[in-house]
Amino acid sequence: MKRYLLAPGPTQVSPEVLLAMAQPILHHRAPEFVTLLDRVKKDLQWIYQTQNDVLILVSSGTGGMEGSVSNFFSPGDKVLTVNGGKFGERWTKLCTAYGVNAEEIKVEWGHAVNPSQIQAALEKDPTIKGVFTTASETSTGVAHPIREIGEIVKGYPNCLMIVDAVSALGVFDIRTDEWGIDIMVTGSQKALALPPGLAFVSVSNKAWGQADKAKNAKFYFNFKKERDALSKNQTAFTSAVSLVVGLDQSLKMMKEEGLQNVFARCGKLALATREAMKGLGLNLFPKNCPSDSVTAIEAPEGYDGQQIYKDLRVKYGITAAGGQDQLKGKVFRIANMGYIDTFDVIIAVSAIEMVLKGMGHPLKLGTGVGIAQEILLKK
Amino acid sequence: MKRYLLAPGPTQVSPEVLLAMAQPILHHRAPEFVTLLDRVKKDLQWIYQTQNDVLILVSSGTGGMEGSVSNFFSPGDKVLTVNGGKFGERWTKLCTAYGVNAEEIKVEWGHAVNPSQIQAALEKDPTIKGVFTTASETSTGVAHPIREIGEIVKGYPNCLMIVDAVSALGVFDIRTDEWGIDIMVTGSQKALALPPGLAFVSVSNKAWGQADKAKNAKFYFNFKKERDALSKNQTAFTSAVSLVVGLDQSLKMMKEEGLQNVFARCGKLALATREAMKGLGLNLFPKNCPSDSVTAIEAPEGYDGQQIYKDLRVKYGITAAGGQDQLKGKVFRIANMGYIDTFDVIIAVSAIEMVLKGMGHPLKLGTGVGIAQEILLKK
Repeated sequence: MKRYLLAPGPTQVSPEVLLAMAQPILHHRAPEFVTLLDRVKKDLQWIYQTQNDVLILVSSGTGGMEGSVSNFFSPGDKVLTVNGGKFGERWTKLCTAYGVNAEEIKVEWGHAVNPSQIQAALEKDPTIKGVFTTASETSTGVAHPIREIGEIVKGYPNCLMIVDAVSALGVFDIRTDEWGIDIMVTGSQKALALPPGLAFVSVSNKAWGQADKAKNAKFYFNFKKERDALSKNQTAFTSAVSLVVGLDQSLKMMKEEGLQNVFARCGKLALATREAMKGLGLNLFPKNCPSDSVTAIEAPEGYDGQQIYKDLRVKYGITAAGGQDQLKGKVFRIANMGYIDTFDVIIAVSAIEMVLKGMGHPLKLGTGVGIAQEILLKK
Repeated sequence: MKRYLLAPGPTQVSPEVLLAMAQPILHHRAPEFVTLLDRVKKDLQWIYQTQNDVLILVSSGTGGMEGSVSNFFSPGDKVLTVNGGKFGERWTKLCTAYGVNAEEIKVEWGHAVNPSQIQAALEKDPTIKGVFTTASETSTGVAHPIREIGEIVKGYPNCLMIVDAVSALGVFDIRTDEWGIDIMVTGSQKALALPPGLAFVSVSNKAWGQADKAKNAKFYFNFKKERDALSKNQTAFTSAVSLVVGLDQSLKMMKEEGLQNVFARCGKLALATREAMKGLGLNLFPKNCPSDSVTAIEAPEGYDGQQIYKDLRVKYGITAAGGQDQLKGKVFRIANMGYIDTFDVIIAVSAIEMVLKGMGHPLKLGTGVGIAQEILLKK
């Protein structure tokens, strides 16, 4: 069966990137790789919209998140975490693992955080040293208001703004420098349309200032060591050279498209997906602020979301995602990021229609597809 | 210029593996990947010669080394480290970073450790909880006597035997279970002939027993979490799926060749390289126990080792390695591991002859090649 990868990570990798990575291996200290890293680090600053260092780590996104805790905070430090899903929760767990005292702002799944809660918490306790947020909460399909939170944190010179943008960077607008984001993590296998294996972290000067005081143990994720290596176009440890070669190709393609065009494309595909689902009478899981990265759709009443996810795969070769934890069986999810275009939406929407029809749903085939087409036709 | 990768990691990757990795991306929770992980984890046990769990981590080898410290030891624990080069030194640095009290057995670079020193240290202080060793010290080209050290550590039920086998596993015989190795780390980019990006760690039951008492912070390199995931043919965090697909192919090829045949091949190639160098009047850097993984050759008196390394690359397209730290300019290094065969040795030896000739050395061209051929002709 022909296969289609429409999961919220790993996402599809273009033939151009696959073939670039299939070339003979470069040595990580060879001049060719040094030249490539010099280009890649600048292109990463471009997609991050930053002048800050963007470190390149060999790990999943979680490794980058771990370093964002261990390099800047000490046991006993007080921080805020925004927990409105699996990945917000991960910040809390990471802080706890490192003895950092995380005060959680619990947000009901499916909702975005209200920035005024962060404002209030910071006003109440000016010793808070960091605010950990999630730009796109992959588990719920919600985008949190990073810009507004950034504006608030800017007012606290001893407090860092940390963003998990693993499934957000390169999908919609996130302005690292303008919005005052001190530390932002992403991974290779989402909008960057690479295989998993690399994490990236931008670090502001404000954050580097805190790093000198941080007392947690670290060695592999030692950001200062990575910064010093990167200044010489190297990495502290052996880089995943083939993935970096792929990154170079992927960023080249995104630069050719243009950042605003990438955002517009993903936004349009996401909108078409959402409207098609609504046109079919399905509910989106997000109650506000849906993320353009991933569309989380509630299974219609009486239908099992896990079955929809399984039928998509087994009957039609489409790898989407089910729900995690409390959402298992209640939602299924479709990605709108990375190496993806018009007909990925058409495939997804038509397959969802066919799966539901097969499960006995009374929908009229083509309804969602037609709505998606209307939107996709617009400039 | 045609390029030849003969560095001690990353090593060459076969076309079969490159093409396997160039296939469309699998999702890390998809049934196809689960089946693949089940096969790969058994094949890893095969190459490790173990019944122990072999964890699969997304990191360079150093990440696997870090987890081998943080998961099994606590601040204040006393351990022994064998430091006879850059990688032995890394164990000490890692222990120090995690507050573990490392007593170093300093070994002169170019020499293997004398196991009786370890015996004496353990007898003197029975509170020592671990012995950290390096199977093949890539910086010096020396193989330490892991089997003999393992026999000693077996006598201490509260002491773990930890081996960095990053450039050793899959090159020469290391019997995890038979030799009593509790924790052994390797990486993808050496004998496994994959791009960098994966680390592997075997963990014995004796080591799991210690893990429950270990108090160091960890999250990304949480070995118990990885063990639990692996029992369900999963990984705790998003795996580097394309590299794991390559691993599956690489292990398949090694199994077809047979483990003893792989060892014999690498051993013969290494012997041919060493004898060719000696026949040219060059000295090997190891004074005893040369590793079959990498041959470290002293630059002849009056010749700069860095210049030899550079000329190999610039004049002949060959990426070898120079010397690290105190050996910079004094040695150059050629790999004998991974996807490598007869004519890789011929290329290396003939290029070294041509580079030295070009630098004014009075050698007779073809001398080393002839000696290598004699050995390579033998069954």
